[in-house]
Amino acid sequence: MARNMSVVDLNSDMGEGFGQWRMGDDHAMLDIVSSANLACGFHAGDPIIMSDLAELAKARGVGIGAHPSFMDLWGFGRRQIKGDSMADIEKMFAYQIGALQGCAAMAGHRVHHVKAHGAIANMAAVDRELALAMARAVKAVDRALIYVALPGTELERTAEEVGLKVAREYYADRTYDDTGNLTPRKQPGAVIHDAEEAASRVLRMVEEGGVRSTSGKLVPVAIDTICVHGDNPAAVAMARTVRQRLEAAGIAIRPMAETLA
Amino acid sequence: MARNMSVVDLNSDMGEGFGQWRMGDDHAMLDIVSSANLACGFHAGDPIIMSDLAELAKARGVGIGAHPSFMDLWGFGRRQIKGDSMADIEKMFAYQIGALQGCAAMAGHRVHHVKAHGAIANMAAVDRELALAMARAVKAVDRALIYVALPGTELERTAEEVGLKVAREYYADRTYDDTGNLTPRKQPGAVIHDAEEAASRVLRMVEEGGVRSTSGKLVPVAIDTICVHGDNPAAVAMARTVRQRLEAAGIAIRPMAETLA
Amino acid sequence: MARNMSVVDLNSDMGEGFGQWRMGDDHAMLDIVSSANLACGFHAGDPIIMSDLAELAKARGVGIGAHPSFMDLWGFGRRQIKGDSMADIEKMFAYQIGALQGCAAMAGHRVHHVKAHGAIANMAAVDRELALAMARAVKAVDRALIYVALPGTELERTAEEVGLKVAREYYADRTYDDTGNLTPRKQPGAVIHDAEEAASRVLRMVEEGGVRSTSGKLVPVAIDTICVHGDNPAAVAMARTVRQRLEAAGIAIRPMAETLA
Amino acid sequence: MARNMSVVDLNSDMGEGFGQWRMGDDHAMLDIVSSANLACGFHAGDPIIMSDLAELAKARGVGIGAHPSFMDLWGFGRRQIKGDSMADIEKMFAYQIGALQGCAAMAGHRVHHVKAHGAIANMAAVDRELALAMARAVKAVDRALIYVALPGTELERTAEEVGLKVAREYYADRTYDDTGNLTPRKQPGAVIHDAEEAASRVLRMVEEGGVRSTSGKLVPVAIDTICVHGDNPAAVAMARTVRQRLEAAGIAIRPMAETLA
Repeated sequence: MARNMSVVDLNSDMGEGFGQWRMGDDHAMLDIVSSANLACGFHAGDPIIMSDLAELAKARGVGIGAHPSFMDLWGFGRRQIKGDSMADIEKMFAYQIGALQGCAAMAGHRVHHVKAHGAIANMAAVDRELALAMARAVKAVDRALIYVALPGTELERTAEEVGLKVAREYYADRTYDDTGNLTPRKQPGAVIHDAEEAASRVLRMVEEGGVRSTSGKLVPVAIDTICVHGDNPAAVAMARTVRQRLEAAGIAIRPMAETLA
Repeated sequence: MARNMSVVDLNSDMGEGFGQWRMGDDHAMLDIVSSANLACGFHAGDPIIMSDLAELAKARGVGIGAHPSFMDLWGFGRRQIKGDSMADIEKMFAYQIGALQGCAAMAGHRVHHVKAHGAIANMAAVDRELALAMARAVKAVDRALIYVALPGTELERTAEEVGLKVAREYYADRTYDDTGNLTPRKQPGAVIHDAEEAASRVLRMVEEGGVRSTSGKLVPVAIDTICVHGDNPAAVAMARTVRQRLEAAGIAIRPMAETLA
Repeated sequence: MARNMSVVDLNSDMGEGFGQWRMGDDHAMLDIVSSANLACGFHAGDPIIMSDLAELAKARGVGIGAHPSFMDLWGFGRRQIKGDSMADIEKMFAYQIGALQGCAAMAGHRVHHVKAHGAIANMAAVDRELALAMARAVKAVDRALIYVALPGTELERTAEEVGLKVAREYYADRTYDDTGNLTPRKQPGAVIHDAEEAASRVLRMVEEGGVRSTSGKLVPVAIDTICVHGDNPAAVAMARTVRQRLEAAGIAIRPMAETLA
Repeated sequence: MARNMSVVDLNSDMGEGFGQWRMGDDHAMLDIVSSANLACGFHAGDPIIMSDLAELAKARGVGIGAHPSFMDLWGFGRRQIKGDSMADIEKMFAYQIGALQGCAAMAGHRVHHVKAHGAIANMAAVDRELALAMARAVKAVDRALIYVALPGTELERTAEEVGLKVAREYYADRTYDDTGNLTPRKQPGAVIHDAEEAASRVLRMVEEGGVRSTSGKLVPVAIDTICVHGDNPAAVAMARTVRQRLEAAGIAIRPMAETLA
């Protein structure tokens, strides 16, 4: 049965600059989300960006998580890279999570969750071995870490299998089918561009404890965190609208580390 | 007064390869030293190398430490880079130490010490602000970390000042003057190339609890760890001779985490 | 005696993004300048950015030049790096110029000039050996390349010495002293922030064939190219104003390869 | 009909180090081969290594070629990377070839050929679109460049199609089937480890103007260049034996730029 919620987590990818370059408006997003997924230096992010965001997040009560990726600065982690062993993948994830823990320690904060980035996340969604390697690495570094996963994928299944706490993620700007899965991006209307529409859908999602499919059906799901974007001004505006509508309806926005505890 | 020692730590820089490249014979060195300083990906080192060495070190009872550096893969961390703020330096160190902690966790090991690498270590030896930034970062990440420092430098002074446990390091292949400081590299005879001579000097150092200066004077010092090298076959042979001579004399070789505890 | 000019070159640094990141509005600047200095992959720039800009520049009649730098993506080439031999510097420059020539060939364009970037340019301005290495590299790759240099510096002197054609560069947003040298940045008023003021000064500079010093004196100089910036919206607006004022006064804007031929 | 040859080219990949790291014995190989394929900084190689090898090659009459790759220093260009457009691939190749041309110019040498490296070469062997992009880039940078290709692959077909001069490459340490194609690596005996056997096969290949298949059949082929390796001591020894046996039989070893002219 659908569960009426009075609290929800909003998460966004952040810290996706490098050196002098920036991607999106991280400062604005820190006032909107309750959980920040921070790039760890492989597809984006560097020690300065990571440490500074950890400090700002701490000051605003925003939880932080690692956003590990393929080592692919040029391709922004969006290119599929094939040839690494599963053991190598584990080590790549351990390195990145640890690096953020080091930066978080400097900032007096703690890493509470992990959400894989880009191509490796997409590949692992349907590749059990890859997903297992990633989940094992997260657990090995800190078994208390929450693993953000797309419901219905190998990311979710393997995380449960190794015993990680899983945060099931839904998107503010995407539609879902009758099984509760994302409608494919290529399908017309799969991506929502209107901020008010996105906000209405998120609010309904949280209030009904489930997603409304494109056919109008209510699919009861556990909504642990809602993903919003901040990589362009329109995305930031949509994220802000989502937050405002949730708050206006009396829904509290809290880090997943609190809501899942 | 000089302190007769029955136990000493041998340390060496390791894991200074990258991807397919290797520098020195890490496997041989793991049978020789008791503490391994592992490159953290900035001047050398990568997640695979770091994790694999952490695992091998764990299996052999070898302690591991972070060997942080400037971000300078091409220059192997040997070039002076000017322009980073002290706050940036702190974050660079926090990132690297954390990254090794992540890899160590995967391997069931723990990071016990930190020893700065190359140009940044040389610069910090005489730059109080830089040395302070580095020491602060180490402490912020884990206040129990041992900081390996060249005695008489800002590295040692600032580490003591921020309250870190300091391991004073002496070199197997270098000579010292009457004040207990290294004779400059350019001075003839400053670097010892003969393995037996190096081993004899190290043994005497440990047995006498001090260094013999080039004038023959005994300078009583606290010798917490002795640095040996492994980046070429002659260096590995010298390191092996040092270990054999110490063991033959009944001196135990133990990680600094044990001897300094 | 000052030379009245009816044609001048406007140059700007461009292509200073990397992968998914961008710096400034290159498309806008291509409609403003006559010479584009393209980052070559060491402090910024990548094969895609370089090739695409070479193609766009070709289509608009904009000349292109290499903008080589230290290998320092993270520091954007703004950090001083010490430890490379002069022979190494030559090779670094040859690599970068060649890389742009390759991209230019793809685009049907040609590299006509070279302007050093950031820290290495600043260092070479006062370091004869470094400046000589850079000039030698430019000449070795293509002796027809024009070398953009700050007048009165070692960059200019060494370029003349090795026999390169030199383009003396003046800034639209900086003031000059009675000797024709830049007033130091730290001095109040050294940097001009008002677009109209900058445009007026540039126009006068070109019409009078010399720079007006802060004391009002006319210092006759050879103004081969005027540097404008494009890394933020205000800079782009200033550059556009400069161009409009020059054109309104009947001054033609032409690539330095034409005006210096 | 098979063509009796009195001259042949030996080629090897070289310059596959980076910064302080080296891979194989390039100096030894420069005395063995007549054509050197130089890594261009993407999977290995840097301006210093490239320029130095270009200079040494020039002095010994060894031809040089670009050995372009995916941008993947960590994976040594051996990992498949998916997600770049064909236009991007062209630009990546143009950049790398140009970079080597710049270094070659410094050394007074010229780039005469191109041979793709690792994963991208393997992928292009069976991917017509990818192979076409690579061939187009080579031609765009310099239509006189010789393209080294595995016979029977898309590399060869597309190079011919765009009008490049093609050097058909055979391996000293591999066996061939009745169609003249490589026997798969996984097949027992596909790789030859004995230096004398490899040398005998190469000599016969050159003398008979064709390859002997594993069934003993002579398959007449145009053997433009023979690939030998130098990345480990045994490989260097095999390459040296091949050269000695060819010379002892009166076969001259000459750069492909001469034999194909």
